[in-house]
Amino acid sequence: MALLNENFLNLKQNYLFIDIAKRVAAFREKNPDTTLIRMGIGDVTRPLAPAVVAAMHKGVDEQSVAETFHGYDDSGRGYPFLRDAIAEYFKSSIGAEIDADEIFISDGAKSDCGNLGDIFSAANTVLLTDPVYPVYFDSNVMAGRQIRVIYSNEGNGFAAMPDESIKADIIYLCSPNNPTGSVYTKEQLAEWVRYALKNNAVIVYDAAYEAFVSDPEIPRSIFTIEGARECAVEICSLSKTAGFTGTRLGYTIIPKELKLFTKGGESDRLARLWLRRQGTKFNGVSYPVQCGAAAVFTPEGQRQIKETIAYYMNNARVITDTLTKLNITFTGGVHSPYIWLKCPTGDRSAGDRSKSDSWKYFDKLLNEYNIVGTPGAGFGKNGEGWFRLTAFNTPQNTEEAMRRISG
Amino acid sequence: MALLNENFLNLKQNYLFIDIAKRVAAFREKNPDTTLIRMGIGDVTRPLAPAVVAAMHKGVDEQSVAETFHGYDDSGRGYPFLRDAIAEYFKSSIGAEIDADEIFISDGAKSDCGNLGDIFSAANTVLLTDPVYPVYFDSNVMAGRQIRVIYSNEGNGFAAMPDESIKADIIYLCSPNNPTGSVYTKEQLAEWVRYALKNNAVIVYDAAYEAFVSDPEIPRSIFTIEGARECAVEICSLSKTAGFTGTRLGYTIIPKELKLFTKGGESDRLARLWLRRQGTKFNGVSYPVQCGAAAVFTPEGQRQIKETIAYYMNNARVITDTLTKLNITFTGGVHSPYIWLKCPTGDRSAGDRSKSDSWKYFDKLLNEYNIVGTPGAGFGKNGEGWFRLTAFNTPQNTEEAMRRISG
Repeated sequence: MALLNENFLNLKQNYLFIDIAKRVAAFREKNPDTTLIRMGIGDVTRPLAPAVVAAMHKGVDEQSVAETFHGYDDSGRGYPFLRDAIAEYFKSSIGAEIDADEIFISDGAKSDCGNLGDIFSAANTVLLTDPVYPVYFDSNVMAGRQIRVIYSNEGNGFAAMPDESIKADIIYLCSPNNPTGSVYTKEQLAEWVRYALKNNAVIVYDAAYEAFVSDPEIPRSIFTIEGARECAVEICSLSKTAGFTGTRLGYTIIPKELKLFTKGGESDRLARLWLRRQGTKFNGVSYPVQCGAAAVFTPEGQRQIKETIAYYMNNARVITDTLTKLNITFTGGVHSPYIWLKCPTGDRSAGDRSKSDSWKYFDKLLNEYNIVGTPGAGFGKNGEGWFRLTAFNTPQNTEEAMRRISG
Repeated sequence: MALLNENFLNLKQNYLFIDIAKRVAAFREKNPDTTLIRMGIGDVTRPLAPAVVAAMHKGVDEQSVAETFHGYDDSGRGYPFLRDAIAEYFKSSIGAEIDADEIFISDGAKSDCGNLGDIFSAANTVLLTDPVYPVYFDSNVMAGRQIRVIYSNEGNGFAAMPDESIKADIIYLCSPNNPTGSVYTKEQLAEWVRYALKNNAVIVYDAAYEAFVSDPEIPRSIFTIEGARECAVEICSLSKTAGFTGTRLGYTIIPKELKLFTKGGESDRLARLWLRRQGTKFNGVSYPVQCGAAAVFTPEGQRQIKETIAYYMNNARVITDTLTKLNITFTGGVHSPYIWLKCPTGDRSAGDRSKSDSWKYFDKLLNEYNIVGTPGAGFGKNGEGWFRLTAFNTPQNTEEAMRRISG
């Protein structure tokens, strides 16, 4: 009898986006002529950069002729032209020396984030910071791992620090953070690296939003921190950096030094295990997409994606200026397209989600201001009472939304 | 301490392609001016069809304009325009009624084949036919499942049938087969369906080569068999069908009826579990690639890919004609681009692989005829003494290779 993986029964149903959709649909039915402004979804809205488009067209054309046709990418790592471009980007722009052979191209950060679990034992204890990107949580529930949670909250600026009493084996960090937009400083990341090394743990560092960091003092890669090569992998994405949410490309950096252990104390290189996993369950990324991705790292591509990021960050500034004026507490919006605000609704009724501050504020924004955002409660316990707005919109819509909120 | 998944230690190192590369390199060093003909690799050589190329260009152009830009595909299933086209293809061309909502688009059959394991319990017993596509074996070793093997061999035409004494929970079948090119008849598949239903097992049916079937009596989908909707998923690919090995797109069909069970006897829909898995660990396929894939299923696209398949199958005929003339036993080459031949090297020394018939014949082809093929021993115990040639070449090279073999 074909048995299912019973760990799936422990997944919490995440009704967040279903709930949102339902409330929005109900509102629309009552108010068919009202224009809603959507500031909830974490998806980009600007098109691909011209340099990327040109490179993808060229890649497609190469696939149309036998002489330049690309079949399987047998390396299991992605093409050297792309990995070399990324290594150079890390050196010149991010300030970390990464060998091109330490870069593994994939169809996206979410895939890597989930699939990395294959090479880890189910016996590992996972440490997450709450509020959290649900993928870290759910993918480990599916694998049956014990999950410990520490809290990011107003008190620590939504930047949780190590709890020495917890012996974690796998630690997920995301900076700039989704959903809170907070960032770790060099000193804070160094603390995490120290903690990971002490526990022989691995940090899965999600750097999907690194391109939004504007302060050179804020690390854009964990590999700018000493010791990180012995304890961290870094998951990167072109989704938010270069608008690849629908075009699909990410990459993971695995230092050669990084090892995992057997219960008996033997060790194996994490990169070798990952290559074995990918060689068995993955066949590489579309060639034209790899061509487009490489164009992101050219001077022209960099100039163009920076314009787009500036476009979004201008929206973020419009939002944070308004919140500041209204005396609403928030994090993010500076090195992140996400603005994480404290719901200005007063009382908090714990327990009943439908009466929570997050959802009260959701309803208020929807019904009074015709704005759709994301209740923080959907990202974990510490998201309750908080709310996420995103800068992925037009300046016109963003300004109109802020006018409505300012009332 | 971050522990590794110790099931990885049970993976056999597959040195097949490394061994081949080493021997070829050694040959090249000694014979720098000899022209080798490569008939070993299972990768296509013809470019994408013009209809596909045009559709991909259009898709890239849409990504270059905000109004037509596609971000995340939130469905987790792929775009309806592609799933509808596939459903129509199944109805009109393959003879099976599949609902578009039963089709799940992915970046390739290998990904689906490996990732499907996530939703199955590690306690399931897996049944494989040997010789075997190594992905079925390795992905289940990684998950720690018990694997039982039954033998495809000359006696059963390399089409192994159920062994009633084995209680299998998950069964992998591949028809037309990789590596043997053999196909199951309707009656044989019906036997497998009966066996699966009896055991409440799930058949993972790999139909990657269905487009090569030329006889309308040979099933191109397991869903042409009664009862299959209650016991099978089907994994399909555009890699060999339409030259997508480097462009990447596959899909899996999961009937609504199909269920998995808990130990306690509860059940859940396999499609629901898969959607949950994909929603957590996957973010969809590149939009321009989905556009290109949809073009495969247009009348123009079908005409073009059939020309390419005919091109390869003409090569296959040149190979099988030669083998017949030389009195060499083989399977495949009729409904498959693979020709699986019995090595005409006489004695068989079991145990020492380097002296096996497969490798002896490899060396003979390389050194005497300057042809590179694939030793069957690389696909499992029953591959020993057999050898795989592929039709993915030019007519000129194929004819020249056969001239050399005919001596």
